[in-house]
Amino acid sequence: MTATSGPSLAPLIQALPEDAVITDPDKMDGYRRDRSHDPEVGVPLAVVRASSTADVQAAVRFAAEHGIALVPRGAGSGLSGGSSVMDGCIVVALDGMRRIDVDPVSHTVVAQPGAFNAEVKAAAAEHGLWYPPDPSSVEFCSIGGNVATNAGGLCCVKYGVTSDYVLGMTVVLADGTAVTLGGPRLKDVAGLSLTKLFVGSEGTLGIITEVVLRLIPAQRPASTLVATFATLADATGSVLAITRSMRPSMLEFMDKVCINAVEDHTRMGLDRHAAGMLIVQSDEPEQFAASEITRISEICRRNSATEVYSTDDPDEGEAFVEARRIVLPAVEKMGAIMLEDVGVPVSRLSDLVLGIEVISRELEVTVAVVAHAGDGNTHPSIVYDPADPDGQPTAQAAFDRIMELAISLGGTITGEHGVGRLKKAWLPGYLGADVMALNQKIKSALDPQNILNPGAVY
Amino acid sequence: MTATSGPSLAPLIQALPEDAVITDPDKMDGYRRDRSHDPEVGVPLAVVRASSTADVQAAVRFAAEHGIALVPRGAGSGLSGGSSVMDGCIVVALDGMRRIDVDPVSHTVVAQPGAFNAEVKAAAAEHGLWYPPDPSSVEFCSIGGNVATNAGGLCCVKYGVTSDYVLGMTVVLADGTAVTLGGPRLKDVAGLSLTKLFVGSEGTLGIITEVVLRLIPAQRPASTLVATFATLADATGSVLAITRSMRPSMLEFMDKVCINAVEDHTRMGLDRHAAGMLIVQSDEPEQFAASEITRISEICRRNSATEVYSTDDPDEGEAFVEARRIVLPAVEKMGAIMLEDVGVPVSRLSDLVLGIEVISRELEVTVAVVAHAGDGNTHPSIVYDPADPDGQPTAQAAFDRIMELAISLGGTITGEHGVGRLKKAWLPGYLGADVMALNQKIKSALDPQNILNPGAVY
Repeated sequence: MTATSGPSLAPLIQALPEDAVITDPDKMDGYRRDRSHDPEVGVPLAVVRASSTADVQAAVRFAAEHGIALVPRGAGSGLSGGSSVMDGCIVVALDGMRRIDVDPVSHTVVAQPGAFNAEVKAAAAEHGLWYPPDPSSVEFCSIGGNVATNAGGLCCVKYGVTSDYVLGMTVVLADGTAVTLGGPRLKDVAGLSLTKLFVGSEGTLGIITEVVLRLIPAQRPASTLVATFATLADATGSVLAITRSMRPSMLEFMDKVCINAVEDHTRMGLDRHAAGMLIVQSDEPEQFAASEITRISEICRRNSATEVYSTDDPDEGEAFVEARRIVLPAVEKMGAIMLEDVGVPVSRLSDLVLGIEVISRELEVTVAVVAHAGDGNTHPSIVYDPADPDGQPTAQAAFDRIMELAISLGGTITGEHGVGRLKKAWLPGYLGADVMALNQKIKSALDPQNILNPGAVY
Repeated sequence: MTATSGPSLAPLIQALPEDAVITDPDKMDGYRRDRSHDPEVGVPLAVVRASSTADVQAAVRFAAEHGIALVPRGAGSGLSGGSSVMDGCIVVALDGMRRIDVDPVSHTVVAQPGAFNAEVKAAAAEHGLWYPPDPSSVEFCSIGGNVATNAGGLCCVKYGVTSDYVLGMTVVLADGTAVTLGGPRLKDVAGLSLTKLFVGSEGTLGIITEVVLRLIPAQRPASTLVATFATLADATGSVLAITRSMRPSMLEFMDKVCINAVEDHTRMGLDRHAAGMLIVQSDEPEQFAASEITRISEICRRNSATEVYSTDDPDEGEAFVEARRIVLPAVEKMGAIMLEDVGVPVSRLSDLVLGIEVISRELEVTVAVVAHAGDGNTHPSIVYDPADPDGQPTAQAAFDRIMELAISLGGTITGEHGVGRLKKAWLPGYLGADVMALNQKIKSALDPQNILNPGAVY
């Protein structure tokens, strides 16, 4: 870490509560990167630990006056470098803003951005209510980060993504103005859909300081089915047959590499020889869940499943879901990884998964594929040895080819992690010049100085 | 109708297929207004009946070159004057663009904007799939208009609004560029959420020429409950108790004026003395729907329902839903009407409905209230005699007071119809100066000449 010079921070320090401005390099170190482990992170000028919308406004006003870049940060669990830091910026850390207020009658919740997703779920559960979106990082990701990236998760196949639950927000704009968009109303079409525009904007249009989320009644206990397959095509064929006529509440896929990584970690008895495994849940009412699970079993068997196991014991089912959730940490034990997030129309899922296998074979690189299969959203992790000089370049080549493959199949370069700094080089090619220009027009209109998370997305 | 002068239309006529440009005043007359019956409509310079995205581009390019206003138009079923015409504009009529292509494997549909909502539903149903959003005008409203206004409907209480189903679109921008946003991918977070921004933009940011919609498996046959109440508070109290723990697939309210208007029309035996009536449906699997309907019955009885009737016969249930759908035409037989669309957080529904009753009494004006009660979205129709010189001004006073009441309860001036030309005077007061400025910044960035539906929304 090297020292960074900049304007006097005295006015900023004066405008904020005591100890809100951190400039000690050691203390700032924990605020420099997210889970994308970006090696190119810089050194911030300061970290502002906001405790209110007014604190964020003070930080933005100071930055606007001096033309300083701002990097908003929730829990730092992002996977695409959306909160990686550049030299001389101000990090606006929202991890101290964690208030959660549930309104059980309107079945809505008002949450501050630093609250963890799991904390929002827990607060809702106290009233028999449920906030569905569930990234695998549910226990340690912030709701503000979820909204900033339009995060997905495992239940999205039936319950949709973060955007579907965001009814309103308070957001601090580039000039320090705080605006309240939407609110606890299930329908509101007065003016442009600004709430939805800010969802997924990755801190480039404003800094979200409060969100209003829709809640629904508590999920019923789910029945779980696990099926293994000798070929990838059998597994993905089952996915298409299931989604064509049913809405399971979870439909996840793990390939052989993931199965073995998890089995190394858990010793739970997964079939190490299977080419792929599906974990499917139904949260329909009792008898109907049983009949849905039976139909799914039949589909899997018709698609040559080597083993099909089902249970209506929620704890036993949760063990399989937990196995799915720990794929990323388990694969990270195998070496350095580059994590992909490509998605395709569900009809092209087989082409994507089989194509990734070809890339893996041709480049002789290990790729661990886990997928929210019912959404067509895959997370191939490219594993490499950082000590091998060929490791990183080969992994990068595989990363590039997987993205090209997804685009050629009508897919997206990022289904739920965001563009951040990791994928911004691919965005213009994916969107095309005209859509890119449309993005830029809105960005320029709302942040003419380009101080809001510059270097991310665009 | 008076003649309007303008630039030579020859280049426009030349750029488009034969007969696509209409200038005959009689033939243009049917394209001047929507169902808001705006008395102030003007006379267009021309109507372009587009049959492709390229046709729309040609019309926009011509208009951009000459600084002519464009008014996009689907089926003309809008209720807020979003496609009311001003003098000298070009109407871009999309009623000839009606192609519908369902992809059953990706469970998505690509539809042109002129296709009726009911036609999209029918095409999906051929594959065992369902497009949920269902405005009461489902049989004669266009899907393009639904997207342009982020239309709601009766099933939204469980299944969400139009925006929740729009995955992508092709849209012609103010300079004639056509861009494709999103696509048939269930998750895509690459770049800003532009698809969602265009949903509900009421033709002010671009002209939508194709939409990609998410489909879900066919709805199960619904069980239906009808309950009548001697007081409004009993009815709305039941709504809050139901939504707190259940997700019915429909939860509609009609007040005494609506009940009597519909009964005059149908003679189906509704209780003319009831202060309010709820129509509730459950589409859960058989036994579970029965138990949900039983729980709802108990809630209604606990809230002093005067009569509770339920049926699992879908045809019998549909007769009650049909009664609900014809409220607007039935009330229109009572006189001229001003139709409201105010919504509040569900917790404030009682305050809104009771407050409207007070306004009706104090101003001695008939107000017929029908509501998507589970969403907190109400449609008070203010009935007046156009021949009475006091009629219109009194109705206007009631209209204003109802909007003020909704705002004071944390509600919105429009839940699902849009701002259009009918409500634009109230938008700045509702949004406030800062949010209004944010709307304007985006409008100006995307349509600097202000040729896209000027006079609507802003």
